[in-house]
Amino acid sequence: MNTKLYLHNTLSRRKEEFVPINPPHVGLYVCGPTVYGDPHLGHARSAITFDLLFRLLRHHGYKVRYVRNITDVGHLEHDADEGNDKIAEKARLEQLEPMEVAQRYTNRYHEALRQLNVLSPSIEPRASGHIIEQIALVQRIIDAGLAYQSNGSVYFDVAKYNELHRYGQLSGRVLDDLQANTRALDGQDEKRSPFDFALWKKASPEHIMRWPSPWSEGFPGWHLECSAMSAKYLGQQFDIHGGGMDLMFPHHECEIAQNVAASGSGAVRYWLHNNMITINGQKMGKSLGNSISLAELFAGAHPLLEQAYSPMTIRFFILQAHYRSTLDFSNEALQAAQRGLARLQSAHRALRKVQPAGQSSVEVGAIAQRVHEALADDLNSPVALAAMFDAVRIINALLEGKERIAADDLARLRVLFDTVLIDIMGLVDEQQAQGQAKLVEGLVDMLLGVRQQAKANRDFATSDRIRDELARMGVAVRDRKDGADWELV
Amino acid sequence: MNTKLYLHNTLSRRKEEFVPINPPHVGLYVCGPTVYGDPHLGHARSAITFDLLFRLLRHHGYKVRYVRNITDVGHLEHDADEGNDKIAEKARLEQLEPMEVAQRYTNRYHEALRQLNVLSPSIEPRASGHIIEQIALVQRIIDAGLAYQSNGSVYFDVAKYNELHRYGQLSGRVLDDLQANTRALDGQDEKRSPFDFALWKKASPEHIMRWPSPWSEGFPGWHLECSAMSAKYLGQQFDIHGGGMDLMFPHHECEIAQNVAASGSGAVRYWLHNNMITINGQKMGKSLGNSISLAELFAGAHPLLEQAYSPMTIRFFILQAHYRSTLDFSNEALQAAQRGLARLQSAHRALRKVQPAGQSSVEVGAIAQRVHEALADDLNSPVALAAMFDAVRIINALLEGKERIAADDLARLRVLFDTVLIDIMGLVDEQQAQGQAKLVEGLVDMLLGVRQQAKANRDFATSDRIRDELARMGVAVRDRKDGADWELV
Repeated sequence: MNTKLYLHNTLSRRKEEFVPINPPHVGLYVCGPTVYGDPHLGHARSAITFDLLFRLLRHHGYKVRYVRNITDVGHLEHDADEGNDKIAEKARLEQLEPMEVAQRYTNRYHEALRQLNVLSPSIEPRASGHIIEQIALVQRIIDAGLAYQSNGSVYFDVAKYNELHRYGQLSGRVLDDLQANTRALDGQDEKRSPFDFALWKKASPEHIMRWPSPWSEGFPGWHLECSAMSAKYLGQQFDIHGGGMDLMFPHHECEIAQNVAASGSGAVRYWLHNNMITINGQKMGKSLGNSISLAELFAGAHPLLEQAYSPMTIRFFILQAHYRSTLDFSNEALQAAQRGLARLQSAHRALRKVQPAGQSSVEVGAIAQRVHEALADDLNSPVALAAMFDAVRIINALLEGKERIAADDLARLRVLFDTVLIDIMGLVDEQQAQGQAKLVEGLVDMLLGVRQQAKANRDFATSDRIRDELARMGVAVRDRKDGADWELV
Repeated sequence: MNTKLYLHNTLSRRKEEFVPINPPHVGLYVCGPTVYGDPHLGHARSAITFDLLFRLLRHHGYKVRYVRNITDVGHLEHDADEGNDKIAEKARLEQLEPMEVAQRYTNRYHEALRQLNVLSPSIEPRASGHIIEQIALVQRIIDAGLAYQSNGSVYFDVAKYNELHRYGQLSGRVLDDLQANTRALDGQDEKRSPFDFALWKKASPEHIMRWPSPWSEGFPGWHLECSAMSAKYLGQQFDIHGGGMDLMFPHHECEIAQNVAASGSGAVRYWLHNNMITINGQKMGKSLGNSISLAELFAGAHPLLEQAYSPMTIRFFILQAHYRSTLDFSNEALQAAQRGLARLQSAHRALRKVQPAGQSSVEVGAIAQRVHEALADDLNSPVALAAMFDAVRIINALLEGKERIAADDLARLRVLFDTVLIDIMGLVDEQQAQGQAKLVEGLVDMLLGVRQQAKANRDFATSDRIRDELARMGVAVRDRKDGADWELV
């Protein structure tokens, strides 16, 4: 690929040319789920956004090491430093061992992503599996004088860090402003400032998930795992860090502070954030009753859903918006996506039947260029898809005999669809597998109708031929007084 | 379920009634794969054997916590205490980070098991994610005086252990006999005796996978993870430990020694071992060129394979043998399994069409009892399947009108098939999904043939009706000079 790749870097707030640290290798880290509940549209958007990036980087010839973590410990309720661990709380409710909860929802996440045709990352580390690395990182931050112990827990000293470096560079927040807008701490808090965050928490007696450390039996703070695991698998400096926009503050801000405190510099060259999904214009949330799981979407099993939406419809719906725009879910939008995808895939299938003519009356090269330039322009999938729809119109004109296409242009058009639709966008054709059982039923019933008619006409040769050919295909027909029934054998 | 469950306990070498420690809870631990290569028939046999046990225990009403580990560190070549780590070695060959290798083959293992309809375990811990727990266990064994340090590594002192307890109780080996048949160590070994085994290994400078410990930067010995992770997730005492017979010695023997050394008693009540698979009468092995991966089996892509075998054919083939018998792979045996499964599933489908009559001329209750007794008799799936084939003969006789069945017996027969075939044996009907694309092609072509004939007879009403009905089902027909072609839209 000669096209240069541009990515919007949250750090600089502008699009930058993507230049990897050590080409052709690219290190990519993305924040995965906290596995205490069913995966929903928000998970799908992040996973599909960075799946598109992963696929595009590979298409550009890079060898990508893609790390996406599983948070199975340390993420407390309300993303706070006090309260229950989200997974431990779910384990209490479901009367399970916390790791059973983590495994169950990890499995469901994987299953949903498999249906969405999201590729597996190269490494999928679990927070609970990297306690040693996290303890070592806490120690380095303490040694740098930027963390303090308090009652067996260890907190990051944001004020002190802010004197040396700048806290808030990713999210654009300024510590003084933050402090001015915050109530003072009540006396019981272990923290010196409300903006300090936990690196290590001492476990209360009833807390099951706990490990020994130099400070207490406890567990790591939520932000710690990403700093520790990205460094372990991608090195102290790596290329791209992705995640949902809701993680920018405080999660990613704290990650940067941890990295800088421990090693003197930030680890990440390009920070990418996907925007959020709203539901009929509202924020999505469990308390609002509008949190729809992916399994519910695929099955159409939620009061807000007028029908089931297939995984590829969801994928296409998400790709039709630019990842940095908000995306509003509604039945109308999903149904439009379903129709759009069907048009695109129908054109792709029909492309097999187009015959080349001597000279092209259509322009294919320009479309391909627009598609690839759009994708390389900060993953502008909606613009790329708009250009693909221009190709759809060309295909339809070719099928109707209104235009002609030369053999090399036809080959180029086929490569465009195979590459962009299947390889980069990951929009596989699910229609065949899904509708086929129903289709078989319809077709057999139709043949039996024809056979019934032949019998009525005393055309027994036709009637027998249909029965025998069906039998040869594994469809056993049994005649009954009132017609016939059949089964697959 | 009132049927008592009997399991063959390798420890006692006899069948014992299964009595859980803390009913209705059952703790089950099974040794999972070392993830450095593609999953093969041996993996399938172990996974399917203990999937059958897991499903049967749940059918008996137990709440099962099923733990199956992933070995991603510490398993050295030739299962020895010297040499390269299997995963690190593969990483070197494939020029990947070891964890990328582990992730890749973990994914392939999961994918193969998903196709084989093997249920996910409740918890799937990774060895590399439990280094702290393993270090703590080594320390307890050192504190008990049953391990020694040597050059930064820690070894289990088998001779000393054997004085206090008996080493070899699971495999029936006697240490004195073992020693009499072994050459003396050369002077360079760190171990006091060749039967001592590594609990912790100091990492050589080029070894990537390493963690700090009180003894050295290094990694845990292969046998350690199962003792540490079973204790963490199932407690110091739990019900059932399963694995392949090749793991009985030294792996499981060492596990017992570790558990007894650390806590004074063995952890496991029932040890279950599945037997091995041979290929055309030969041991399976990479060096013998007869190691067939599951992906190759499913695709028919190996010189030893005459055809592709579907996941359910493999599953049925494995269930047709008792798990403690050897099982010989051959094309003939697989083809017989394919036919047998087809008969069973065809009867199951046909059962939907059977109509009840006043009184039964057939005996259903006795068959159901035989099936459930066989399964409860140490998972005797071949005897259970033989009884199911008696039910198949009954169904065929019913379909031919040679026998009659009362409504309650018919309901019982349906429950038997749904429960045993689908729920317990996990033999889902894959024929429909697989063959359907081909079937659709055949059916549409047949209808177009009928339409062509109608046109030739100038019966345009029929010809148009077929075209329109096909269009309604999403099959677009395009007439050409020399016939017609079609596509799904």
